Amino acid sequence: MKILLTLQYNGTNFIGWQKQINGRSIQGELEKSLSFLLDDNIKIYGSGRTDAKVHAIGQTAHFETNSFKINNFLKKGKLIKTSFINALNANLPEDIYITNATLVNNNFHARYDVKEKVYEYHLQIGKNPLNNNLCGKINSKLCMPLMKEASKYLVGEHDFSSFCSSKTATANHIRTIKYIKIYSIKNNEIIFEISGNGFLYNMVRIIVGSLVNVGLKKIQPIDIKNILDKKNRIFAGKTMQPEGLYLKKVIY
Amino acid sequence: MKILLTLQYNGTNFIGWQKQINGRSIQGELEKSLSFLLDDNIKIYGSGRTDAKVHAIGQTAHFETNSFKINNFLKKGKLIKTSFINALNANLPEDIYITNATLVNNNFHARYDVKEKVYEYHLQIGKNPLNNNLCGKINSKLCMPLMKEASKYLVGEHDFSSFCSSKTATANHIRTIKYIKIYSIKNNEIIFEISGNGFLYNMVRIIVGSLVNVGLKKIQPIDIKNILDKKNRIFAGKTMQPEGLYLKKVIY
Repeated sequence: MKILLTLQYNGTNFIGWQKQINGRSIQGELEKSLSFLLDDNIKIYGSGRTDAKVHAIGQTAHFETNSFKINNFLKKGKLIKTSFINALNANLPEDIYITNATLVNNNFHARYDVKEKVYEYHLQIGKNPLNNNLCGKINSKLCMPLMKEASKYLVGEHDFSSFCSSKTATANHIRTIKYIKIYSIKNNEIIFEISGNGFLYNMVRIIVGSLVNVGLKKIQPIDIKNILDKKNRIFAGKTMQPEGLYLKKVIY
Repeated sequence: MKILLTLQYNGTNFIGWQKQINGRSIQGELEKSLSFLLDDNIKIYGSGRTDAKVHAIGQTAHFETNSFKINNFLKKGKLIKTSFINALNANLPEDIYITNATLVNNNFHARYDVKEKVYEYHLQIGKNPLNNNLCGKINSKLCMPLMKEASKYLVGEHDFSSFCSSKTATANHIRTIKYIKIYSIKNNEIIFEISGNGFLYNMVRIIVGSLVNVGLKKIQPIDIKNILDKKNRIFAGKTMQPEGLYLKKVIY
């Protein structure tokens, strides 16, 4: 029996998604709570990793179990969602929250079946003590029309070698960005919403760092196209702070 | 020379506004930073205290100084705002942020001259790991039209004895509420905005706790009027958690 979870988390006090020998990981907390709840040795597979301090509004992950305890949450072969979700949330710490759970086919995989992912980057202009740990921060104002113009060069299928960490493990750097929305909300906060068929390591944070350079008028919108063409990380902007990144949605 | 500061703070890691022997207070941090910056023994007077974990978007406070160091921030007898604000913010911890500073008359007092105060209460329906420490929380849905109807009984001049802590020090419990706005924002968060000429101890949190009882249909809107008439704290709702309270604005 395979179950797909949708979950939120506040990344502030985690070393990231992936379980490691030391430190508190989201994967580790989920496996601990599920294993306890189902009296089984549960292994969980996320749609992808998130780094330390990165948040999620709609991360997804699947697990398999044959434990007889899962029967407590089944009725005529269907999952009694609220009862399972409530039981799991009651076992999880305050900074993780399950929002959905569904039975999936045995051949479903939370990572390999992803069709599209949506991220948000929250950027605070100036200091705001109320959103420490919840936003990236920058001290100067940014030109919104220039950033919007620049973002258009990134939409579509491109080789994003310039926009991924040198630590990126995958060889194929071609990805398709579906859209980039950039808008302001109250209190001088700017949201970058980026949707694509897949993202390389640090890709969203480097894209935002590069658009910020456009917003600061350090480079021009057309330079984003030039940076893409170089296919070399050193030409793009800096990797923005992890606190501002939110995995918003995973679409299958 | 008297200066009025406007400031924001995240109350999470404070024991409250007021300086105490043990623990980190907003007053204490401000006095420490100002005293260091101006090489003087600065005493600061807030518009009022806030409790532990309560936040501020627009708290105000004044201080007096005759230190020669203030001359670094004066030009032709006027305060060079940005330079003073930047110097002070550089000395303050991450969870306090000065947004304004103005010279005021010698007879001005940040507390006694208040004409109006505006508070917000942020209430999260259900769990949301992304706003832990930034919202009060409740598990059930609330009926918005009933709460709005109930709030009308509180607007105007009333004796708020039922809606203040039994620890309230002042004898006169008559206050005027100018308006109460109640609206939802994204992610199942409800904002209560309350403006008045003054507030008794825990008054906003008890008002929200009572309106929540209406929203839960435990009591009816008209009961808010009945509770007012009783002039006794035991009839009102519970004091909501401090994490949801924001001092939004102080008007002189």
